[in-house]
Amino acid sequence: MLTAAICTIGDEILIGQIVDTNSSHISRALNSIGVKVRYMNSFGDERSEIISNLDQALSQNDIVIVTGGLGPTKDDITKSALAELYGSTGFYQDEAQFEIVKRIVTRRGIELSDLNRAQASVPQGSIVIPNQLGTAPCIVFRFPEERYPHRPTLYSLPGVPFEAIGLLPDVISDIKSHYQLADIHHKTLVTFGIPESTLAKQIEPWEDALPEDIKLAYLPNPIVGVRLRLSTYGGVKDEEIRRIDTEFEKLREMLGDAIYGEGEDTLQIVIGKHLKNKGMTLSAAESCTGGKIASLLTSVAGASQYFYGSVTSYDNSIKENILGVPHEIIAQHGAVSRECVEAMAKGVNRIMNTNFAVATSGIAGPGGGSPEKPVGTAWLAVAYHDKTTGKDEVISKKVAFNSSREVNIDRFASNALNLLRLYLESH
Amino acid sequence: MLTAAICTIGDEILIGQIVDTNSSHISRALNSIGVKVRYMNSFGDERSEIISNLDQALSQNDIVIVTGGLGPTKDDITKSALAELYGSTGFYQDEAQFEIVKRIVTRRGIELSDLNRAQASVPQGSIVIPNQLGTAPCIVFRFPEERYPHRPTLYSLPGVPFEAIGLLPDVISDIKSHYQLADIHHKTLVTFGIPESTLAKQIEPWEDALPEDIKLAYLPNPIVGVRLRLSTYGGVKDEEIRRIDTEFEKLREMLGDAIYGEGEDTLQIVIGKHLKNKGMTLSAAESCTGGKIASLLTSVAGASQYFYGSVTSYDNSIKENILGVPHEIIAQHGAVSRECVEAMAKGVNRIMNTNFAVATSGIAGPGGGSPEKPVGTAWLAVAYHDKTTGKDEVISKKVAFNSSREVNIDRFASNALNLLRLYLESH
Repeated sequence: MLTAAICTIGDEILIGQIVDTNSSHISRALNSIGVKVRYMNSFGDERSEIISNLDQALSQNDIVIVTGGLGPTKDDITKSALAELYGSTGFYQDEAQFEIVKRIVTRRGIELSDLNRAQASVPQGSIVIPNQLGTAPCIVFRFPEERYPHRPTLYSLPGVPFEAIGLLPDVISDIKSHYQLADIHHKTLVTFGIPESTLAKQIEPWEDALPEDIKLAYLPNPIVGVRLRLSTYGGVKDEEIRRIDTEFEKLREMLGDAIYGEGEDTLQIVIGKHLKNKGMTLSAAESCTGGKIASLLTSVAGASQYFYGSVTSYDNSIKENILGVPHEIIAQHGAVSRECVEAMAKGVNRIMNTNFAVATSGIAGPGGGSPEKPVGTAWLAVAYHDKTTGKDEVISKKVAFNSSREVNIDRFASNALNLLRLYLESH
Repeated sequence: MLTAAICTIGDEILIGQIVDTNSSHISRALNSIGVKVRYMNSFGDERSEIISNLDQALSQNDIVIVTGGLGPTKDDITKSALAELYGSTGFYQDEAQFEIVKRIVTRRGIELSDLNRAQASVPQGSIVIPNQLGTAPCIVFRFPEERYPHRPTLYSLPGVPFEAIGLLPDVISDIKSHYQLADIHHKTLVTFGIPESTLAKQIEPWEDALPEDIKLAYLPNPIVGVRLRLSTYGGVKDEEIRRIDTEFEKLREMLGDAIYGEGEDTLQIVIGKHLKNKGMTLSAAESCTGGKIASLLTSVAGASQYFYGSVTSYDNSIKENILGVPHEIIAQHGAVSRECVEAMAKGVNRIMNTNFAVATSGIAGPGGGSPEKPVGTAWLAVAYHDKTTGKDEVISKKVAFNSSREVNIDRFASNALNLLRLYLESH
């Protein structure tokens, strides 16, 4: 099986000013074509560090993918380190990339600088995969047998995430056309609502009975839920996928509606599919989640087909004046109450003229809260307005978490979406 | 200077199912106390990989921080690998952590399982920093001189981000109390609105004149803007900070209001400070940003003091019926127009009875768009309602980007916030 190392260059990662999201995308893409990522590595902008780390990565792996260190500013020295490592005698200007640089600079309405021009200059002996989305190209080095007996390939990508991700399909094509690839098969089910440890206990007998060569992994995420992934290496594709499906069928029987999707499904994607199938519309009224639910729903391309809009009613005056929550409800029960959140859901459904609505009201922290309603408490509601009968149906649920403000908001939002997902599945 | 390695264990990172956000937090914390992070490393759940990678990290560094591999499920084998590496003869139950495990399990309303109990069991010879936020503790191994001459310390943290981050202050205290620390000084200015390459060109003379020992780094981020960080190692703290301040003063003169803050400042934090100082309130009307602006504004604890709420008007009916955008405006100019976004801003200010409002309308993609208004185009507006005179003031701006849906949304949102920030600074 081909192996790969993913290397990230840049002091900005080592000092923690930015999070490396590229490596995750790259490893997923490599995985999908059966290339095993053995390790990921981040190191600093120093020439000797770059050379020794990349030399080690090339010695041990068939494919090395490097991100970062190609920006236009002076703290980047990757390109000359790569030239040294490869033994390039100089640099040349890649014309395809230079045209893109000129186009981008012109569109930004700025003058072409030497720094921009330098972006299209690459070491002799390397080839370029042009980057349509930015000024720095992907530079490909195919190392000869004299250098490393297994003739590895190094791909150097810009560090800007959407540029690196934009170049990935071309990198994957290049790998596919230059290597004989082994097979990897995996499939993922996505669950929501059962904590990881409870889930593990619940499916223990099933897990213990799994064939030796089928590997299970738990991938928990506060917004998505727990993903369960089964993998096998080698074998015949159809047969292996059939074996995984057979195991997942057993799991579906055990977990029921806690399973909501497969692969890259998220709650907002699945909700979108349900609404499109029903030809129905959705709105949201958010207090403690402060726009997070709307933001998740609209992260799905095409959400405008079913998502009409939302009201973030952070101040109680907005709950009353715009969503029409009766003043007495807030006075009597408080904003974090079943009564308030149900009125919010019904209210937003009414003012936006939608079929379904989801609402939240809670305390994300760190401040606020009381002994009865501590930080981390939220009420969630889902309302359905039947346009034929004019009747409203509403369900609600209280949740309590113990996380940071950010994670509490994420959990309130995903639990509200899950309440909606379950409601849509049963109506 | 003390050096550190940050190691992340888990196939879920190598196959790209989750993004490692922990390492960034950890490196920032280490950096702040003058510990230099030499590298970060992610590798798989295999015993031999874990042992060889950690052995290498311990050989080369004073401090090794490990995250991941401590969850309750079966794909975790880190703890026994750590025991083997340290030479532990067995395991013991840490009573403090066991009490926390019982408390958490009880609150979740689930039964205490063997898997839960095992979380409080740690290798002999290690000590525990209890984890109040989850079941797996931080396990500390102080290696003796016989093992590694420089007597490094290894901290093993759970992989769940808010738990790992929650434990960090205790880890940092532990490091401070066990090591003599060298000094690192850095200070960061945050800019918005100038692309990295233009900025680099603009400040080139200043950068060229920087003293040799003051290091500059560019840290671009589509939401925050470009951070400029100056660092020095060693020296006397007050003197070094004064030297950095002197350099930054020159930069402030060159960049003017493109600089909006320092350190960890974000646009939403700075906007919050301005509004609190003025004692004024804010609302938002979002179309293409779909809740992102509200979500950013409410990510700041205490935002309820000045942020009243928002309307996500994804469907045009919401723009008309709730925000009161005249039908003729949309019919004549379209939803993505100066006229529409200005009406949205004034409308939300009116219905929420706020002083300031920010609004967006654009095309995030991938679908939609036209030759005149391609994907990536958005109109942004800021409105001010003078409650004494009853007069409205509104400014607007068109932006155009060329990114993925996700990044387009981020950029629309941050540019709208920056328009608001500039407006607040001059009013």
